[in-house]
Amino acid sequence: MGDLKQEEVLQEALRVTERVRELEEEVATAVGRRYGDEHSLRQRVSALDSLLRGVSSSFDAKRAELDPKIIDKIEEELYKAQWILKEGDAAALLPSRTHGRFLKMVLGPVDVRVSRKEEKLKIKEEYNKYRDKTAVLFLLFPSSLLVLRSWIWNGCFPALPVQLYQAWLLYLYTNLALRENILRANGSDIRPWWIYHHYCTMLMALVSLTWEIKGEPDCANKQRGVQLLLAWAIMQGIAMLLQNRYQRQRLYTRIALGKAKRMDVVWGEAAGVEGQLWLLYPILFTLQAFEAYVGMLLLKTALDGVIPQWQVIVCGVLLVVMAVGNFINTVQTLVSKFRFKAKVKKLKAKHEPPTDLKSS
Amino acid sequence: MGDLKQEEVLQEALRVTERVRELEEEVATAVGRRYGDEHSLRQRVSALDSLLRGVSSSFDAKRAELDPKIIDKIEEELYKAQWILKEGDAAALLPSRTHGRFLKMVLGPVDVRVSRKEEKLKIKEEYNKYRDKTAVLFLLFPSSLLVLRSWIWNGCFPALPVQLYQAWLLYLYTNLALRENILRANGSDIRPWWIYHHYCTMLMALVSLTWEIKGEPDCANKQRGVQLLLAWAIMQGIAMLLQNRYQRQRLYTRIALGKAKRMDVVWGEAAGVEGQLWLLYPILFTLQAFEAYVGMLLLKTALDGVIPQWQVIVCGVLLVVMAVGNFINTVQTLVSKFRFKAKVKKLKAKHEPPTDLKSS
Repeated sequence: MGDLKQEEVLQEALRVTERVRELEEEVATAVGRRYGDEHSLRQRVSALDSLLRGVSSSFDAKRAELDPKIIDKIEEELYKAQWILKEGDAAALLPSRTHGRFLKMVLGPVDVRVSRKEEKLKIKEEYNKYRDKTAVLFLLFPSSLLVLRSWIWNGCFPALPVQLYQAWLLYLYTNLALRENILRANGSDIRPWWIYHHYCTMLMALVSLTWEIKGEPDCANKQRGVQLLLAWAIMQGIAMLLQNRYQRQRLYTRIALGKAKRMDVVWGEAAGVEGQLWLLYPILFTLQAFEAYVGMLLLKTALDGVIPQWQVIVCGVLLVVMAVGNFINTVQTLVSKFRFKAKVKKLKAKHEPPTDLKSS
Repeated sequence: MGDLKQEEVLQEALRVTERVRELEEEVATAVGRRYGDEHSLRQRVSALDSLLRGVSSSFDAKRAELDPKIIDKIEEELYKAQWILKEGDAAALLPSRTHGRFLKMVLGPVDVRVSRKEEKLKIKEEYNKYRDKTAVLFLLFPSSLLVLRSWIWNGCFPALPVQLYQAWLLYLYTNLALRENILRANGSDIRPWWIYHHYCTMLMALVSLTWEIKGEPDCANKQRGVQLLLAWAIMQGIAMLLQNRYQRQRLYTRIALGKAKRMDVVWGEAAGVEGQLWLLYPILFTLQAFEAYVGMLLLKTALDGVIPQWQVIVCGVLLVVMAVGNFINTVQTLVSKFRFKAKVKKLKAKHEPPTDLKSS
């Protein structure tokens, strides 16, 4: 190749390197500027958030001395401001909620917060879809095990299918705990208890994996614990399916009312849709009673020496703890729901929900 | 309270709501603009990346016809360009590497990529720290179990401590797999095999949890599998400690040479530091041989009917698969290391590494 040609190839390489260098500089400047801009916006959002809190609490202090009409107006204004600040794009700039030790422990120092409303909604929708898919499996898996047990396995579980189920539970609960922590980091109002609840179930799934599945002779007695857990899982699956349905309706209702932060996830809460509420809550309370009952039975079998394994004791204690926690949190949710309903009624009596909230 | 006072409280609320509304608008505009800017930068980075690839491959095609001196110059230029484009701020704008099914499955649609170099380095450092901490436990945990077995437990493992260890392994491997996937999403060059390897170890830990730890009589025989696995874990712990040390030194060396993308993680690779290389690689190969041997022994005990559990077979197969995969990947790493070394020698003979790379 001639010298000229050779020089040409070299020049081409030099040109492309130069362009890379220029673009890199441009990007670095843009990133730096962006962080600067964001920093100042972050400070302003933070300051305004504090101001709003201050105004709210000074209003609460003066409330007794004010006219009911003025109170309604002020409440509405403050409500609007809070809603915009929490649901809008500014929300991503608010000082981070404690990022969650769990996420930090498992993922390291990664920021899982997204900055756009659309991305937040995508996460939330994906989570809902995942729960829907899961609820069906949650129902089918233990049901099939119980059916197969009496039809094919002559009343005696083989170990492998049960262990597969337990491994799946461990995966599922870890998954849910991670996703809920991510939702929370992104500003969802999910009650911390429902996340702790998933830590408990993770632990239970792990412990039950080490739980020796003993077979003949006397299956009925030795596998009583497994059987009870499966029955409880089926009930939980039904409740989950119902909850998912109500949850979605409630969310749409609340969004329509301009009340909801769309990032709300309330695992154990539901409805707002009057009629369904009377179906769901009795089921939830029954499930919780049954959960406590299964826990007690497990403890009894362990202490009576029928299945003298530490795993049975741990699972029993966890079930009782979860039942109590679930009960307390469901009641709290119910109370706040009724309070909210009373408020909405009052607002509705006055006028329809403000339209500018819907569009913002 | 007087009407005037009341009006004042209302005005305060109106004012704060108005300010919130304004700020939200400002933030929304900023976010929108930012996404627009980023989109156009993203396209330009992408286009330049393609151009660079094109120039590189056309250079490779013409290489035979070029002078060695020109070749060296062009190689250096192209190398610089590639390095800047991969290590700089522009790297975050390159089209995403497949985000990893594993992360998507476990975390949902969250973007774990960070946009600043400093954040990337933080993730990488945290990962290194985590591995350091882990390696010590990785060594201590199985050693203590083996020591306690002969000192206190009379040659017979109780189930609980072994199961705790297995649960810890499951947690650890899940954790590492997640973190390595995050590093990879952030542009690290970690070989995919080392991530697959952690999926295998996750599966093994899970399976071993369901593995019944049988005790007396004849512990030595029944617990042979557990014992072998623990011995293998100790060797792995030693190798991990050595690797971590070499890895860090190698990284610093490579950064100094301007060669490294600092996001490199190469679990099974090491050194570059001549003398240590001759210590590490024999250990790695010995470990791999031992891994295969343990796998075969497990398969043998299972097929001979000494421990006729499916878990033993699965663990055996997994160990053999991992040993083979590790061996292949270590050899590949070694080969590419020698190739790189030859190249560096050639460059060094000419001049010191270009200083402008260090600072960029």
